[in-house]
Amino acid sequence: MTEENRVVLAAGAGGPEVLRLENRPRPVPGPHELLVRVHAAGVNRPDVMQRQGNYPPPPGASEVLGLELAGEVTALGEGVTRFAPGARVMGLVHSGGYADWALVHEEIAIGLPDSLGYVEAAAIPETYFTVWSNVFERAGLKQGETILIHGGTSGIGSTATMLAKAFGATVLVTAGGPEKCTAALGLGADHAIDYRSADFVAEARRLTGGKGPEVILDMVGGPYMQRNLDLVAVDGRISQIAFQQGSTADLDMLPLLMKRLTLTGSTLRARPVEMKARLARALETHVLPLLARGEALPRIDSVFPLEKVAEAHARMDGGAHVGKIVLTMTGDAAAR
Amino acid sequence: MTEENRVVLAAGAGGPEVLRLENRPRPVPGPHELLVRVHAAGVNRPDVMQRQGNYPPPPGASEVLGLELAGEVTALGEGVTRFAPGARVMGLVHSGGYADWALVHEEIAIGLPDSLGYVEAAAIPETYFTVWSNVFERAGLKQGETILIHGGTSGIGSTATMLAKAFGATVLVTAGGPEKCTAALGLGADHAIDYRSADFVAEARRLTGGKGPEVILDMVGGPYMQRNLDLVAVDGRISQIAFQQGSTADLDMLPLLMKRLTLTGSTLRARPVEMKARLARALETHVLPLLARGEALPRIDSVFPLEKVAEAHARMDGGAHVGKIVLTMTGDAAAR
Repeated sequence: MTEENRVVLAAGAGGPEVLRLENRPRPVPGPHELLVRVHAAGVNRPDVMQRQGNYPPPPGASEVLGLELAGEVTALGEGVTRFAPGARVMGLVHSGGYADWALVHEEIAIGLPDSLGYVEAAAIPETYFTVWSNVFERAGLKQGETILIHGGTSGIGSTATMLAKAFGATVLVTAGGPEKCTAALGLGADHAIDYRSADFVAEARRLTGGKGPEVILDMVGGPYMQRNLDLVAVDGRISQIAFQQGSTADLDMLPLLMKRLTLTGSTLRARPVEMKARLARALETHVLPLLARGEALPRIDSVFPLEKVAEAHARMDGGAHVGKIVLTMTGDAAAR
Repeated sequence: MTEENRVVLAAGAGGPEVLRLENRPRPVPGPHELLVRVHAAGVNRPDVMQRQGNYPPPPGASEVLGLELAGEVTALGEGVTRFAPGARVMGLVHSGGYADWALVHEEIAIGLPDSLGYVEAAAIPETYFTVWSNVFERAGLKQGETILIHGGTSGIGSTATMLAKAFGATVLVTAGGPEKCTAALGLGADHAIDYRSADFVAEARRLTGGKGPEVILDMVGGPYMQRNLDLVAVDGRISQIAFQQGSTADLDMLPLLMKRLTLTGSTLRARPVEMKARLARALETHVLPLLARGEALPRIDSVFPLEKVAEAHARMDGGAHVGKIVLTMTGDAAAR
């Protein structure tokens, strides 16, 4: 086992070319922390934003990129009770996932079913925590309801599609162009609306017999906000998880009252450990059994070795990916 | 007992002078409806809006004003099981409260404790249903949290203050001028902020040690919307029940994400019977015991006989009232 600890840092703000591989001391686990030999780490939009200088890590977190990982527990901090060395885990981290070694809080780590490989596992935490929290808890999506998912082929969008279908909802997605629409249908969406050639409000209204979807999951913001308010059904819920086209708009909030709406939003990274731990337990209860049966597994777009991290980011920047981009640190990352 | 049925209608849209007393046939109860001899009816802001031509009754409802009443059951429609003739009840109506006789759905009617008079009872349904639904259910106010109530001396504001205090919250209110602030403190508010002389955002922030109130109840809208978003605490909830200064604004919704907020709103009148029935049962369970003990009773601003309805509306238009304005139809409205 290697003694080195390669980590990825951004040398200034910019494109994928600012990413640097450096060697750092292996981290030492504090109370309730697991030292994990990372086998694979997921690439996420906030990593790109951090690279661009727009999403600094929270105070106290390292500058090493990466919000999720999967690997093997090799050492325990004081007081750890949930895992022993040798355990295979996946987990969320404040930062530091793009590395050979990382620390994960034991309460946020989830043990892997034997059937789940590290590449797939590394693609799970960020999107599955986000989708469970925003779609099922905050927006309360229920069996038999309809959800409209903007960006149906993104990491979040594909996870939301699979989980919403697994829990008995009808899924409409928006996607850009016929190829992405085909990919969204392949992920299980009931209907894919090409936002480049159709008005999603009119289409979604038509597809729901005029009443609109009960839940909308949006990461676009900007000009979508009023359209979501106008479209969503009576007693509807809109869950906002990003503002890719900005967070400001001239809004008429009357539908909030007249349709008894709930607007909610959240980011994952800023949540206290207790909230993430509660989410981890909910995922273990509700979602892990699906994953162990091979259902609702993350769609993997592409896998890059850690040293090709700039190529991985370039692929995300290009926007042609469908599903998750994953980095691997070891030759046996795909091993069970 | 009189055979006539005086009702109040608006002859065109305008000021209190458009209100007319007319005589109409006594209504006939349909399935699950109670015929009620009305002793008292509450006056509400939506009645004023309806008089001004801005809030038409829902389809199928009569043009007679009035959303809440208290009185005695005198006849039953088919299938009624919850009440017998002679029962003293209060209830919500789609329309028709300003009348000698009215129909109330049995599921929405609440039986009166002996200690509760008709004048006080008539002042309860609209505001207590609204406050319970918006503050306790939709915004989930919990013991130990802080709520900011805009318009602390309005009917809704005074009810929200008393119920929030009864359930263990800290209450900040805004009110216009020193007299209204004094009145709000008299209703039990912990702090009253005079919005004419102070910036409520700065004041409420100071009073909460910088973290902001967990819940905001707002009926102002317009320029208050961004200020509420900026002020409310992390994991906070904003409940919007009216837009007295308009429903449009140029908004930055970033706090929705960064603070994991929930924005919600509702109107009472448009809700289906099943939702109102569920609320009526929640009020019977959680609030009626308080009222029966003489706690959290509605503050009565003034009482007018039905024939002086124009004076009652003029008092609401003037904005000097503190608490509820009530109409009485019978000389014994205050009788137990």
